[in-house]
Amino acid sequence: MLKYEQIAQQMNEYIESGQFQAGDKLPSVEALKIKYNVSKSTIIKALEILEKQGNIYQARGSGIYVRNKKRDGYLNLFSTGGFSDEFKGLNVTNKVLRVEEVISPESVRQKLKLEKDTLVYVLERIVYVDGEIFCFEQSYFNKDIVLFLNESIAEKSIFKYLEQNLKVKIGFSDIYFNVDKLEEEEAELLELDEGDPCLNYEQVFYTTTGIPFDCSHLIYHYKNAHFYIPSQK
Amino acid sequence: MLKYEQIAQQMNEYIESGQFQAGDKLPSVEALKIKYNVSKSTIIKALEILEKQGNIYQARGSGIYVRNKKRDGYLNLFSTGGFSDEFKGLNVTNKVLRVEEVISPESVRQKLKLEKDTLVYVLERIVYVDGEIFCFEQSYFNKDIVLFLNESIAEKSIFKYLEQNLKVKIGFSDIYFNVDKLEEEEAELLELDEGDPCLNYEQVFYTTTGIPFDCSHLIYHYKNAHFYIPSQK
Repeated sequence: MLKYEQIAQQMNEYIESGQFQAGDKLPSVEALKIKYNVSKSTIIKALEILEKQGNIYQARGSGIYVRNKKRDGYLNLFSTGGFSDEFKGLNVTNKVLRVEEVISPESVRQKLKLEKDTLVYVLERIVYVDGEIFCFEQSYFNKDIVLFLNESIAEKSIFKYLEQNLKVKIGFSDIYFNVDKLEEEEAELLELDEGDPCLNYEQVFYTTTGIPFDCSHLIYHYKNAHFYIPSQK
Repeated sequence: MLKYEQIAQQMNEYIESGQFQAGDKLPSVEALKIKYNVSKSTIIKALEILEKQGNIYQARGSGIYVRNKKRDGYLNLFSTGGFSDEFKGLNVTNKVLRVEEVISPESVRQKLKLEKDTLVYVLERIVYVDGEIFCFEQSYFNKDIVLFLNESIAEKSIFKYLEQNLKVKIGFSDIYFNVDKLEEEEAELLELDEGDPCLNYEQVFYTTTGIPFDCSHLIYHYKNAHFYIPSQK
């Protein structure tokens, strides 16, 4: 864990220990620098993490405020660290239905900015949180970034594998979604009824240098999936 | 419009004019400072706006990258400027069903951190985008911040009224949502059928200094509302 990640963790513990309530003002960057005995840039990076998690809000020229703690079990859609990262303390498991190399479909090819007839990995799996079906996921991966993929990797956290084994730096993602009715096949996968509601969700992930490497389509279980966004003006 | 807002607008035009494509690297802060002949802090503030809009991504130590332009008609849930702000070029109208002072319900009182028996404004309205039902909104407002509200104000953009007339500085908000089936009464409001899908959405807005002033419950029309989030690792 990097220094600023350690500091972020310590600051979260400090906030959670109840010394701070939602709406309270945190000490200034200067004061935090002294408290944790680190550089200003380490504090700034740590605060960035807390901000993305939705734990603090930095008001320009006014200060740093503590936000309400996110309710447990809600998926933070702004800070995309993958399911395992999001649901710490809960048991995230995957049932892999398919993982293979295929020629990229046209729609995926455009989103991943690939040449015609490029091979990509396709993965289909059901994600469970504490044994309950959370979503069906279909992901296409750019093989220039995701060099290798197989079933035993796909059973665990792909993001951890990418970051730790392949040293991929995950940067940002575009999310588009809408609410819809489940088609027959989708309903079967989620063990729901045709026509039941669902969240229909598209996400394209980019590296920190702007290369799209993962084009995912997720269908969330309407009873088991709940979402959170730490939003800003 | 403030200087950095002007610069943000100019930079958006510069990006949109096609000189930059998604994934392209923008000039450095130093270079932009010279190009627009403004201070470094003005550029940094302008880049913050573009980042919240999902138009750029700032990679620490690597540079500033252009993102894909958000698809038209999708509501950006990360940057909450209100519907009118989000749907520029589209016709946003409201049908006000109710606006009055009431004693705050218990659940709202807790979220707005109010004393028992405090009066709040309650507003109910249907929001239309280009004549199509977009959502049903029920909002409770803290009267210490939202000093006055009536039907003719509620027919237009409440956020513009708060910012321009009441000088409220809107800071951040917590969003929680899930997918559900419409109850009979909700279905009637949205002109849909009971049991149809919906996005069930709760949002609490805070001022820049952490005071909660608006506790809203929205039910989005599943065919007409589409959403976007510029997400980050």
